[in-house]
Amino acid sequence: MTYCIGLRLDHGLVFMADTRTSAGVDNFATSKKMFSWHVPGDRMITIMTAGNLATTQSMISLLEERSKAVEERNPSILHETTMFQVARLVGATLKEVIGESADQGQNAKDQFSASVIIGGQIKGGKPTIFLVYPQGNFIEITDDTPFFQIGETKYGKPILVRAYDPKMSFEEALKLLLVSFDSTVKSNLSVGLPFDLQVYEADSFKQGISRRIEENDPIYQAISQGWGDALKNAFQLLPAYKL
Amino acid sequence: MTYCIGLRLDHGLVFMADTRTSAGVDNFATSKKMFSWHVPGDRMITIMTAGNLATTQSMISLLEERSKAVEERNPSILHETTMFQVARLVGATLKEVIGESADQGQNAKDQFSASVIIGGQIKGGKPTIFLVYPQGNFIEITDDTPFFQIGETKYGKPILVRAYDPKMSFEEALKLLLVSFDSTVKSNLSVGLPFDLQVYEADSFKQGISRRIEENDPIYQAISQGWGDALKNAFQLLPAYKL
Repeated sequence: MTYCIGLRLDHGLVFMADTRTSAGVDNFATSKKMFSWHVPGDRMITIMTAGNLATTQSMISLLEERSKAVEERNPSILHETTMFQVARLVGATLKEVIGESADQGQNAKDQFSASVIIGGQIKGGKPTIFLVYPQGNFIEITDDTPFFQIGETKYGKPILVRAYDPKMSFEEALKLLLVSFDSTVKSNLSVGLPFDLQVYEADSFKQGISRRIEENDPIYQAISQGWGDALKNAFQLLPAYKL
Repeated sequence: MTYCIGLRLDHGLVFMADTRTSAGVDNFATSKKMFSWHVPGDRMITIMTAGNLATTQSMISLLEERSKAVEERNPSILHETTMFQVARLVGATLKEVIGESADQGQNAKDQFSASVIIGGQIKGGKPTIFLVYPQGNFIEITDDTPFFQIGETKYGKPILVRAYDPKMSFEEALKLLLVSFDSTVKSNLSVGLPFDLQVYEADSFKQGISRRIEENDPIYQAISQGWGDALKNAFQLLPAYKL
């Protein structure tokens, strides 16, 4: 499995993805699941993928036009005029790839399935995030649903529900994401470090901060360890339930 | 779905189960999923069920011998000599019920599936907990795996992993369970209040504290609210990840 979050804040967007890919416990590896495109002054687009690795890699290759010679490549993702159009393109590409592998056309339940989070900003529009389904359709983030998760979403959801605030700084959001990822890693073997991070500042139209957070990262270690301790302290603050 | 936890402490056992049953969002109700038997001075046994309600209710009825006239009932669960034998009986009964409904014998993946947590103590043995699979086989709790969950297990697992300690008092364990259940309820519509609680003190061989915790319970409300606040405070204690 996989764990990816796309989060919208008042200041911009934050994306985080793990990098573990596995087909059974004796066949696992590290694989990038976050891909970004940017044209300074015009757009920044980030895609994160979950699901069948053959499907998602093929989709990314098609979006980057890797079927063409290097000098002929001109990815349409860099020419669509709105994020909505980008989401349509990604949805159509995803549906096409799944359909090619599946026996009887596209079938969301089959083993070739995948889902995608796509976010960013194109000049003239606002920063936004879409969740694209294997069927090729998609939903857009709203103020009521300010984040999307794909993959192993359940372990890390409670902390997002409790602590997310659109006014958060990027640093606070990153702390929140690390806690959510750390909770997932501690509970599920199919999600693993390192994590890929992408921060996009609203209306900057440039790539922003992009970083890989390794297992031995001292701040990640401190947050992981500190969160366990902080939880225990938090317990002490709760009222006792007399039996 | 459902959410149930069986937890072993040095002092004894704690069980908690939600009570929401649903077959789609427009068909939900409250249904008991925790059942206890006790013979003072001899044994205390608690069963919690998750999965198809027809299957689990039928299994409980068979265990209680409801197919017989009231005066002829003599549930074998009250006569097995060890908890291991009780787990075998429950596993065999569960497998039998699933097999009756399924087209081609028992199939864990079909819609008649269910799983069961069974715990307690019988004179001569130690307090223990088993997790029974739809196939009728089962695993026993160990020091390395000090709790079992069934149903919607993922949302509430991270806090159990972090904060469980076998030396906890029953009050602390109850606080931990309420936080784990509250995290699940906040993230998943198929788990709902009220919660059923059963506490068993090791070597007491009596029923112990049994209680239903309603949504408007002031301590539950305080823990639910307090946990959100405590989490936010805990965030402040974590080191910042400088970008």
